[in-house]
Amino acid sequence: MPYIKVQITRENVTSEQKLQIIQGATDLMVNILNKDPEATFVVIEEVDTDNWGVAGEQVTTLRKRQAEAKKLAEANKPK
Amino acid sequence: MPYIKVQITRENVTSEQKLQIIQGATDLMVNILNKDPEATFVVIEEVDTDNWGVAGEQVTTLRKRQAEAKKLAEANKPK
Amino acid sequence: MPYIKVQITRENVTSEQKLQIIQGATDLMVNILNKDPEATFVVIEEVDTDNWGVAGEQVTTLRKRQAEAKKLAEANKPK
Amino acid sequence: MPYIKVQITRENVTSEQKLQIIQGATDLMVNILNKDPEATFVVIEEVDTDNWGVAGEQVTTLRKRQAEAKKLAEANKPK
Amino acid sequence: MPYIKVQITRENVTSEQKLQIIQGATDLMVNILNKDPEATFVVIEEVDTDNWGVAGEQVTTLRKRQAEAKKLAEANKPK
Amino acid sequence: MPYIKVQITRENVTSEQKLQIIQGATDLMVNILNKDPEATFVVIEEVDTDNWGVAGEQVTTLRKRQAEAKKLAEANKPK
Repeated sequence: MPYIKVQITRENVTSEQKLQIIQGATDLMVNILNKDPEATFVVIEEVDTDNWGVAGEQVTTLRKRQAEAKKLAEANKPK
Repeated sequence: MPYIKVQITRENVTSEQKLQIIQGATDLMVNILNKDPEATFVVIEEVDTDNWGVAGEQVTTLRKRQAEAKKLAEANKPK
Repeated sequence: MPYIKVQITRENVTSEQKLQIIQGATDLMVNILNKDPEATFVVIEEVDTDNWGVAGEQVTTLRKRQAEAKKLAEANKPK
Repeated sequence: MPYIKVQITRENVTSEQKLQIIQGATDLMVNILNKDPEATFVVIEEVDTDNWGVAGEQVTTLRKRQAEAKKLAEANKPK
Repeated sequence: MPYIKVQITRENVTSEQKLQIIQGATDLMVNILNKDPEATFVVIEEVDTDNWGVAGEQVTTLRKRQAEAKKLAEANKPK
Repeated sequence: MPYIKVQITRENVTSEQKLQIIQGATDLMVNILNKDPEATFVVIEEVDTDNWGVAGEQVTTLRKRQAEAKKLAEANKPK
Protein backbone atom coordinates (compact mmCIF):
# COMPACT_ATOMS: atom_id res chain seq x y z
CA MET A 1 0.00 0.00 0.00
CA PRO A 2 2.64 2.52 -0.86
CA TYR A 3 2.00 6.22 -1.25
CA ILE A 4 4.69 8.09 -3.14
CA LYS A 5 4.78 11.86 -3.35
CA VAL A 6 7.05 13.44 -5.94
CA GLN A 7 7.47 17.14 -5.31
CA ILE A 8 9.19 19.09 -8.09
CA THR A 9 9.33 22.65 -9.38
CA ARG A 10 6.66 23.61 -11.94
CA GLU A 11 8.87 23.94 -15.01
CA ASN A 12 7.02 22.62 -18.05
CA VAL A 13 6.81 18.99 -17.01
CA THR A 14 4.86 17.21 -19.75
CA SER A 15 2.03 14.74 -19.24
CA GLU A 16 4.24 12.07 -20.85
CA GLN A 17 7.01 12.74 -18.31
CA LYS A 18 4.46 12.52 -15.50
CA LEU A 19 3.33 9.13 -16.80
CA GLN A 20 6.95 7.94 -16.88
CA ILE A 21 7.45 9.05 -13.26
CA ILE A 22 4.24 7.27 -12.22
CA GLN A 23 5.21 4.08 -14.05
CA GLY A 24 8.79 4.18 -12.78
CA ALA A 25 7.84 4.79 -9.14
CA THR A 26 5.19 2.06 -9.27
CA ASP A 27 7.70 -0.39 -10.76
CA LEU A 28 10.12 0.34 -7.91
CA MET A 29 7.47 -0.68 -5.37
CA VAL A 30 6.58 -3.84 -7.30
CA ASN A 31 10.15 -4.93 -8.04
CA ILE A 32 11.88 -4.01 -4.77
CA LEU A 33 9.11 -4.54 -2.20
CA ASN A 34 6.78 -6.92 -4.05
CA LYS A 35 3.86 -4.49 -3.60
CA ASP A 36 0.58 -4.68 -5.46
CA PRO A 37 0.57 -2.00 -8.20
CA GLU A 38 -3.21 -1.60 -7.82
CA ALA A 39 -2.56 -0.38 -4.27
CA THR A 40 0.28 1.97 -5.17
CA PHE A 41 -0.49 5.69 -5.39
CA VAL A 42 1.94 8.17 -6.94
CA VAL A 43 1.14 11.86 -6.51
CA ILE A 44 3.14 14.53 -8.34
CA GLU A 45 3.10 17.97 -6.74
CA GLU A 46 4.38 20.86 -8.87
CA VAL A 47 5.56 23.91 -6.95
CA ASP A 48 6.10 27.41 -8.42
CA THR A 49 9.77 28.35 -8.57
CA ASP A 50 8.98 31.37 -6.37
CA ASN A 51 7.79 28.97 -3.66
CA TRP A 52 10.82 26.66 -3.62
CA GLY A 53 13.96 27.73 -1.83
CA VAL A 54 17.46 26.23 -1.88
CA ALA A 55 20.38 27.70 0.00
CA GLY A 56 18.12 30.52 1.18
CA GLU A 57 17.27 31.62 -2.35
CA GLN A 58 14.19 31.22 -4.56
CA VAL A 59 14.62 28.81 -7.48
CA THR A 60 13.35 31.65 -9.71
CA THR A 61 16.52 33.57 -8.89
CA LEU A 62 18.72 30.53 -9.29
CA ARG A 63 17.27 29.84 -12.74
CA LYS A 64 17.88 33.45 -13.85
CA ARG A 65 21.52 33.24 -12.76
CA GLN A 66 21.96 29.92 -14.53
CA ALA A 67 20.43 31.34 -17.73
CA GLU A 68 22.72 34.39 -17.60
CA ALA A 69 25.80 32.25 -16.98
CA LYS A 70 24.87 30.12 -19.98
CA LYS A 71 24.37 33.16 -22.20
CA LEU A 72 27.71 34.59 -21.11
CA ALA A 73 29.50 31.30 -21.75
CA GLU A 74 28.06 31.18 -25.25
CA ALA A 75 29.00 34.79 -25.99
CA ASN A 76 32.58 34.05 -24.95
CA LYS A 77 32.95 30.89 -26.97
CA PRO A 78 35.84 31.10 -29.47
CA LYS A 79 34.48 31.19 -32.99
CA MET B 1 -3.69 19.71 17.95
CA PRO B 2 -4.52 17.51 15.00
CA TYR B 3 -3.53 18.34 11.45
CA ILE B 4 -5.50 16.43 8.83
CA LYS B 5 -4.56 16.49 5.16
CA VAL B 6 -7.12 15.21 2.68
CA GLN B 7 -5.57 14.69 -0.73
CA ILE B 8 -7.99 14.01 -3.57
CA THR B 9 -8.14 14.37 -7.35
CA ARG B 10 -9.35 17.74 -8.66
CA GLU B 11 -12.69 16.64 -10.09
CA ASN B 12 -15.29 19.33 -9.46
CA VAL B 13 -15.38 19.12 -5.69
CA THR B 14 -17.80 21.82 -4.53
CA SER B 15 -17.25 24.28 -1.69
CA GLU B 16 -20.17 22.63 0.13
CA GLN B 17 -18.50 19.22 -0.11
CA LYS B 18 -15.27 20.72 1.17
CA LEU B 19 -17.12 22.12 4.16
CA GLN B 20 -18.64 18.71 4.86
CA ILE B 21 -15.18 17.10 4.76
CA ILE B 22 -13.81 19.77 7.12
CA GLN B 23 -16.72 19.35 9.53
CA GLY B 24 -16.63 15.57 9.39
CA ALA B 25 -12.89 15.30 9.94
CA THR B 26 -13.01 17.80 12.81
CA ASP B 27 -15.85 15.84 14.44
CA LEU B 28 -13.79 12.66 14.26
CA MET B 29 -11.01 14.33 16.25
CA VAL B 30 -13.44 15.71 18.83
CA ASN B 31 -15.50 12.55 19.24
CA ILE B 32 -12.79 9.89 19.08
CA LEU B 33 -9.78 11.66 20.62
CA ASN B 34 -11.47 14.41 22.63
CA LYS B 35 -9.47 17.07 20.78
CA ASP B 36 -10.22 20.79 20.83
CA PRO B 37 -11.89 21.75 17.51
CA GLU B 38 -10.27 25.21 17.67
CA ALA B 39 -6.90 23.47 17.43
CA THR B 40 -7.86 21.13 14.60
CA PHE B 41 -6.70 22.00 11.09
CA VAL B 42 -8.08 20.26 8.01
CA VAL B 43 -6.34 20.96 4.71
CA ILE B 44 -7.78 19.72 1.42
CA GLU B 45 -5.30 19.32 -1.41
CA GLU B 46 -6.73 18.85 -4.90
CA VAL B 47 -4.42 17.17 -7.42
CA ASP B 48 -4.83 17.22 -11.22
CA THR B 49 -5.79 13.80 -12.60
CA ASP B 50 -2.65 13.91 -14.77
CA ASN B 51 -0.59 14.13 -11.58
CA TRP B 52 -2.15 11.18 -9.72
CA GLY B 53 -1.18 7.66 -10.59
CA VAL B 54 -2.71 4.33 -9.58
CA ALA B 55 -1.45 0.99 -10.81
CA GLY B 56 1.15 2.81 -12.90
CA GLU B 57 -1.46 4.79 -14.82
CA GLN B 58 -2.64 8.40 -14.71
CA VAL B 59 -6.14 8.88 -13.28
CA THR B 60 -6.92 10.87 -16.47
CA THR B 61 -6.55 7.64 -18.45
CA LEU B 62 -8.50 5.63 -15.90
CA ARG B 63 -11.39 8.11 -16.06
CA LYS B 64 -11.47 7.95 -19.88
CA ARG B 65 -11.65 4.16 -19.81
CA GLN B 66 -14.39 4.25 -17.18
CA ALA B 67 -16.40 6.75 -19.26
CA GLU B 68 -16.04 4.61 -22.38
CA ALA B 69 -17.07 1.45 -20.53
CA LYS B 70 -20.14 3.25 -19.25
CA LYS B 71 -21.07 4.51 -22.72
CA LEU B 72 -20.65 1.02 -24.16
CA ALA B 73 -22.79 -0.52 -21.42
CA GLU B 74 -25.55 1.97 -22.11
CA ALA B 75 -25.41 1.39 -25.88
CA ASN B 76 -25.78 -2.34 -25.32
CA LYS B 77 -28.69 -2.10 -22.91
CA PRO B 78 -31.78 -4.00 -24.18
CA LYS B 79 -34.53 -1.55 -25.14
CA MET C 1 -8.39 7.65 -4.76
CA PRO C 2 -8.17 9.69 -1.62
CA TYR C 3 -5.13 9.76 0.65
CA ILE C 4 -5.83 11.08 4.14
CA LYS C 5 -3.07 11.83 6.61
CA VAL C 6 -4.03 12.33 10.23
CA GLN C 7 -1.18 13.82 12.21
CA ILE C 8 -1.63 13.87 15.99
CA THR C 9 0.51 13.95 19.10
CA ARG C 10 1.66 10.57 20.43
CA GLU C 11 -0.40 10.49 23.64
CA ASN C 12 -1.64 6.94 24.25
CA VAL C 13 -3.90 6.63 21.23
CA THR C 14 -5.30 3.08 21.31
CA SER C 15 -5.52 0.71 18.37
CA GLU C 16 -9.33 0.83 18.73
CA GLN C 17 -9.27 4.65 18.42
CA LYS C 18 -7.05 4.35 15.36
CA LEU C 19 -9.55 1.97 13.77
CA GLN C 20 -12.37 4.43 14.47
CA ILE C 21 -10.40 7.25 12.81
CA ILE C 22 -9.69 5.03 9.79
CA GLN C 23 -13.34 3.99 9.49
CA GLY C 24 -14.64 7.52 10.03
CA ALA C 25 -12.30 9.14 7.51
CA THR C 26 -13.05 6.44 4.93
CA ASP C 27 -16.79 6.92 5.45
CA LEU C 28 -16.39 10.68 4.81
CA MET C 29 -14.83 9.97 1.41
CA VAL C 30 -17.53 7.44 0.51
CA ASN C 31 -20.48 9.49 1.72
CA ILE C 32 -19.44 13.00 0.66
CA LEU C 33 -17.40 12.32 -2.50
CA ASN C 34 -18.73 8.91 -3.54
CA LYS C 35 -15.20 7.49 -3.50
CA ASP C 36 -14.35 3.78 -3.57
CA PRO C 37 -13.34 2.69 -0.04
CA GLU C 38 -10.92 0.11 -1.51
CA ALA C 39 -8.98 3.02 -3.00
CA THR C 40 -9.00 5.15 0.15
CA PHE C 41 -5.84 5.22 2.27
CA VAL C 42 -5.80 6.68 5.78
CA VAL C 43 -2.40 7.11 7.42
CA ILE C 44 -2.09 8.10 11.07
CA GLU C 45 1.17 9.78 12.05
CA GLU C 46 1.90 10.10 15.76
CA VAL C 47 4.36 12.83 16.73
CA ASP C 48 6.22 13.10 20.07
CA THR C 49 4.96 16.03 22.16
CA ASP C 50 8.53 17.41 22.15
CA ASN C 51 8.34 17.62 18.35
CA TRP C 52 5.00 19.47 18.09
CA GLY C 53 4.87 23.18 18.69
CA VAL C 54 1.89 25.50 19.15
CA ALA C 55 2.23 29.19 19.86
CA GLY C 56 6.00 28.79 19.88
CA GLU C 57 5.93 26.23 22.67
CA GLN C 58 6.39 22.43 22.79
CA VAL C 59 3.20 20.48 23.53
CA THR C 60 5.18 18.76 26.31
CA THR C 61 5.34 22.11 28.14
CA LEU C 62 1.71 22.87 27.40
CA ARG C 63 0.62 19.51 28.83
CA LYS C 64 2.65 20.09 32.03
CA ARG C 65 1.04 23.48 32.54
CA GLN C 66 -2.41 22.04 31.93
CA ALA C 67 -1.77 19.24 34.46
CA GLU C 68 -0.57 21.73 37.09
CA ALA C 69 -3.56 23.99 36.52
CA LYS C 70 -5.86 21.00 36.98
CA LYS C 71 -4.11 19.92 40.18
CA LEU C 72 -4.31 23.46 41.57
CA ALA C 73 -8.00 23.72 40.71
CA GLU C 74 -8.69 20.48 42.52
CA ALA C 75 -6.70 21.52 45.60
CA ASN C 76 -8.69 24.75 45.78
CA LYS C 77 -12.09 23.13 45.45
CA PRO C 78 -14.32 23.82 48.48
CA LYS C 79 -14.87 20.65 50.48
CA MET D 1 19.61 17.82 4.63
CA PRO D 2 16.54 19.48 5.99
CA TYR D 3 13.28 19.73 4.10
CA ILE D 4 10.91 22.40 5.41
CA LYS D 5 7.34 22.70 4.22
CA VAL D 6 5.47 25.89 5.05
CA GLN D 7 1.76 25.51 4.41
CA ILE D 8 -0.27 28.70 4.54
CA THR D 9 -3.52 30.06 3.16
CA ARG D 10 -3.33 31.70 -0.28
CA GLU D 11 -3.96 35.30 0.77
CA ASN D 12 -1.80 37.61 -1.33
CA VAL D 13 1.58 36.50 -0.06
CA THR D 14 4.18 38.46 -2.02
CA SER D 15 7.31 37.08 -3.64
CA GLU D 16 9.35 39.23 -1.24
CA GLN D 17 7.58 37.64 1.76
CA LYS D 18 8.23 34.20 0.33
CA LEU D 19 11.93 35.03 0.02
CA GLN D 20 11.98 36.17 3.67
CA ILE D 21 10.37 32.90 4.77
CA ILE D 22 12.88 30.90 2.73
CA GLN D 23 15.82 32.87 4.13
CA GLY D 24 14.52 32.73 7.69
CA ALA D 25 13.80 29.00 7.67
CA THR D 26 17.19 28.26 6.10
CA ASP D 27 18.93 30.39 8.73
CA LEU D 28 17.18 28.41 11.50
CA MET D 29 18.64 25.18 10.13
CA VAL D 30 22.13 26.67 9.80
CA ASN D 31 22.18 28.42 13.18
CA ILE D 32 20.40 25.86 15.36
CA LEU D 33 21.41 22.56 13.73
CA ASN D 34 24.59 23.57 11.88
CA LYS D 35 23.11 22.32 8.60
CA ASP D 36 24.51 23.09 5.15
CA PRO D 37 22.29 25.76 3.51
CA GLU D 38 23.00 24.25 0.06
CA ALA D 39 21.25 21.10 1.25
CA THR D 40 18.27 22.87 2.82
CA PHE D 41 15.01 22.92 0.86
CA VAL D 42 12.11 25.19 1.83
CA VAL D 43 8.81 24.61 0.05
CA ILE D 44 5.90 27.02 0.47
CA GLU D 45 2.46 25.56 -0.21
CA GLU D 46 -0.40 28.04 -0.58
CA VAL D 47 -3.87 26.64 0.05
CA ASP D 48 -7.17 28.25 -1.03
CA THR D 49 -9.15 29.52 1.97
CA ASP D 50 -12.03 27.24 0.89
CA ASN D 51 -9.72 24.27 1.34
CA TRP D 52 -8.44 25.10 4.83
CA GLY D 53 -10.60 24.38 7.85
CA VAL D 54 -10.23 25.44 11.46
CA ALA D 55 -12.74 24.58 14.18
CA GLY D 56 -14.86 22.81 11.55
CA GLU D 57 -15.21 25.95 9.43
CA GLN D 58 -13.65 27.11 6.15
CA VAL D 59 -11.17 29.97 6.50
CA THR D 60 -13.20 31.78 3.81
CA THR D 61 -16.10 32.00 6.28
CA LEU D 62 -13.82 32.98 9.14
CA ARG D 63 -12.32 35.81 7.08
CA LYS D 64 -15.81 37.13 6.16
CA ARG D 65 -16.83 37.17 9.80
CA GLN D 66 -13.61 38.93 10.79
CA ALA D 67 -14.14 41.55 8.07
CA GLU D 68 -17.72 42.18 9.18
CA ALA D 69 -16.70 42.48 12.84
CA LYS D 70 -14.05 45.01 11.84
CA LYS D 71 -16.52 47.05 9.79
CA LEU D 72 -19.02 47.05 12.65
CA ALA D 73 -16.37 48.12 15.14
CA GLU D 74 -15.39 51.02 12.91
CA ALA D 75 -19.01 52.11 12.39
CA ASN D 76 -19.52 52.17 16.14
CA LYS D 77 -16.40 54.13 16.95
CA PRO D 78 -17.17 57.38 18.77
CA LYS D 79 -16.40 60.38 16.54
CA MET E 1 15.41 20.01 -6.76
CA PRO E 2 13.07 17.09 -6.31
CA TYR E 3 11.85 15.84 -2.95
CA ILE E 4 10.41 12.34 -3.02
CA LYS E 5 8.57 10.84 -0.08
CA VAL E 6 7.96 7.11 -0.10
CA GLN E 7 5.46 6.11 2.55
CA ILE E 8 5.11 2.39 3.18
CA THR E 9 4.03 0.06 5.97
CA ARG E 10 6.73 -0.93 8.46
CA GLU E 11 7.08 -4.59 7.52
CA ASN E 12 10.72 -5.62 7.72
CA VAL E 13 12.05 -3.46 4.92
CA THR E 14 15.82 -4.03 4.83
CA SER E 15 18.48 -1.34 4.56
CA GLU E 16 19.46 -2.84 1.18
CA GLN E 17 15.86 -2.43 -0.08
CA LYS E 18 15.83 1.16 1.17
CA LEU E 19 19.02 1.86 -0.77
CA GLN E 20 17.46 0.37 -3.91
CA ILE E 21 14.39 2.61 -3.50
CA ILE E 22 16.62 5.67 -3.00
CA GLN E 23 18.74 4.81 -6.05
CA GLY E 24 15.73 3.99 -8.21
CA ALA E 25 13.79 7.13 -7.31
CA THR E 26 16.87 9.31 -7.85
CA ASP E 27 17.48 7.70 -11.24
CA LEU E 28 13.88 8.50 -12.27
CA MET E 29 14.48 12.18 -11.58
CA VAL E 30 17.79 12.19 -13.45
CA ASN E 31 16.61 10.19 -16.46
CA ILE E 32 13.09 11.59 -16.92
CA LEU E 33 13.50 15.19 -15.76
CA ASN E 34 17.23 15.72 -16.15
CA LYS E 35 17.53 16.72 -12.48
CA ASP E 36 20.78 16.97 -10.55
CA PRO E 37 21.09 13.87 -8.29
CA GLU E 38 22.97 15.96 -5.69
CA ALA E 39 19.79 18.03 -5.28
CA THR E 40 17.43 15.06 -5.11
CA PHE E 41 16.15 14.00 -1.68
CA VAL E 42 14.36 10.70 -1.13
CA VAL E 43 12.72 10.18 2.27
CA ILE E 44 11.27 6.81 3.25
CA GLU E 45 8.59 6.91 5.94
CA GLU E 46 7.64 3.60 7.52
CA VAL E 47 4.21 3.47 9.14
CA ASP E 48 3.00 0.84 11.66
CA THR E 49 0.37 -1.46 10.16
CA ASP E 50 -2.01 -0.36 12.95
CA ASN E 51 -1.72 3.22 11.65
CA TRP E 52 -2.42 2.50 7.97
CA GLY E 53 -5.97 1.96 6.82
CA VAL E 54 -7.33 0.68 3.52
CA ALA E 55 -11.01 0.19 2.82
CA GLY E 56 -11.77 1.29 6.37
CA GLU E 57 -9.64 -1.44 7.92
CA GLN E 58 -6.21 -1.50 9.58
CA VAL E 59 -3.49 -3.19 7.53
CA THR E 60 -2.77 -5.30 10.66
CA THR E 61 -6.20 -6.92 10.24
CA LEU E 62 -5.75 -7.30 6.49
CA ARG E 63 -2.41 -9.06 6.99
CA LYS E 64 -3.94 -11.49 9.54
CA ARG E 65 -6.72 -12.39 7.11
CA GLN E 66 -4.24 -12.89 4.29
CA ALA E 67 -2.08 -15.14 6.49
CA GLU E 68 -5.09 -17.23 7.52
CA ALA E 69 -6.27 -17.56 3.93
CA LYS E 70 -2.80 -18.74 2.94
CA LYS E 71 -2.67 -21.28 5.77
CA LEU E 72 -6.11 -22.60 4.83
CA ALA E 73 -5.15 -22.88 1.17
CA GLU E 74 -2.08 -24.89 2.09
CA ALA E 75 -4.03 -27.19 4.42
CA ASN E 76 -6.48 -27.94 1.63
CA LYS E 77 -3.88 -28.65 -1.02
CA PRO E 78 -4.22 -32.17 -2.46
CA LYS E 79 -1.28 -34.33 -1.39
CA MET F 1 -3.15 29.32 10.30
CA PRO F 2 0.25 28.14 9.21
CA TYR F 3 1.40 24.55 9.43
CA ILE F 4 5.15 24.10 9.25
CA LYS F 5 6.79 20.71 8.89
CA VAL F 6 10.51 20.47 9.54
CA GLN F 7 11.90 17.17 8.33
CA ILE F 8 15.45 16.38 9.39
CA THR F 9 17.66 13.34 9.93
CA ARG F 10 17.50 11.76 13.41
CA GLU F 11 20.98 12.69 14.64
CA ASN F 12 20.82 13.57 18.33
CA VAL F 13 18.70 16.69 18.04
CA THR F 14 18.10 17.90 21.60
CA SER F 15 14.80 19.01 23.07
CA GLU F 16 16.31 22.50 23.48
CA GLN F 17 17.16 22.63 19.76
CA LYS F 18 13.63 21.52 18.93
CA LEU F 19 12.24 24.33 21.04
CA GLN F 20 14.48 26.82 19.22
CA ILE F 21 13.22 25.55 15.85
CA ILE F 22 9.60 25.81 17.02
CA GLN F 23 10.14 29.35 18.36
CA GLY F 24 12.07 30.48 15.30
CA ALA F 25 9.57 29.10 12.78
CA THR F 26 6.65 30.59 14.71
CA ASP F 27 8.39 33.98 14.83
CA LEU F 28 8.83 33.89 11.04
CA MET F 29 5.07 33.49 10.58
CA VAL F 30 4.29 36.28 13.05
CA ASN F 31 6.90 38.74 11.78
CA ILE F 32 6.69 38.15 8.03
CA LEU F 33 3.02 37.25 7.54
CA ASN F 34 1.44 38.75 10.65
CA LYS F 35 -0.01 35.37 11.63
CA ASP F 36 -1.47 34.50 15.02
CA PRO F 37 1.09 32.38 16.95
CA GLU F 38 -1.75 30.51 18.70
CA ALA F 39 -2.79 29.22 15.27
CA THR F 40 0.71 28.27 14.14
CA PHE F 41 1.70 24.59 14.29
CA VAL F 42 5.29 23.45 13.90
CA VAL F 43 5.89 19.72 13.53
CA ILE F 44 9.41 18.26 13.57
CA GLU F 45 9.80 14.91 11.87
CA GLU F 46 13.03 13.03 12.52
CA VAL F 47 14.01 10.44 9.91
CA ASP F 48 16.54 7.62 10.37
CA THR F 49 19.71 8.19 8.31
CA ASP F 50 19.05 4.84 6.57
CA ASN F 51 15.73 6.27 5.33
CA TRP F 52 17.04 9.52 3.89
CA GLY F 53 18.74 9.56 0.52
CA VAL F 54 20.76 12.27 -1.22
CA ALA F 55 22.42 11.80 -4.59
CA GLY F 56 21.17 8.22 -4.63
CA GLU F 57 22.95 7.32 -1.40
CA GLN F 58 21.78 6.78 2.19
CA VAL F 59 22.81 9.51 4.64
CA THR F 60 24.22 6.70 6.84
CA THR F 61 26.83 6.04 4.14
CA LEU F 62 27.50 9.73 3.61
CA ARG F 63 28.12 10.22 7.35
CA LYS F 64 30.57 7.28 7.46
CA ARG F 65 32.53 8.73 4.56
CA GLN F 66 32.59 12.17 6.18
CA ALA F 67 33.82 10.68 9.46
CA GLU F 68 36.58 8.75 7.70
CA ALA F 69 37.67 11.82 5.75
CA LYS F 70 37.87 13.78 8.98
CA LYS F 71 39.91 11.07 10.71
CA LEU F 72 42.30 10.91 7.75
CA ALA F 73 42.71 14.68 7.70
CA GLU F 74 43.57 14.68 11.38
CA ALA F 75 46.07 11.84 11.02
CA ASN F 76 47.83 13.75 8.25
CA LYS F 77 48.04 17.03 10.10
CA PRO F 78 51.64 18.24 10.53
CA LYS F 79 52.62 18.08 14.19
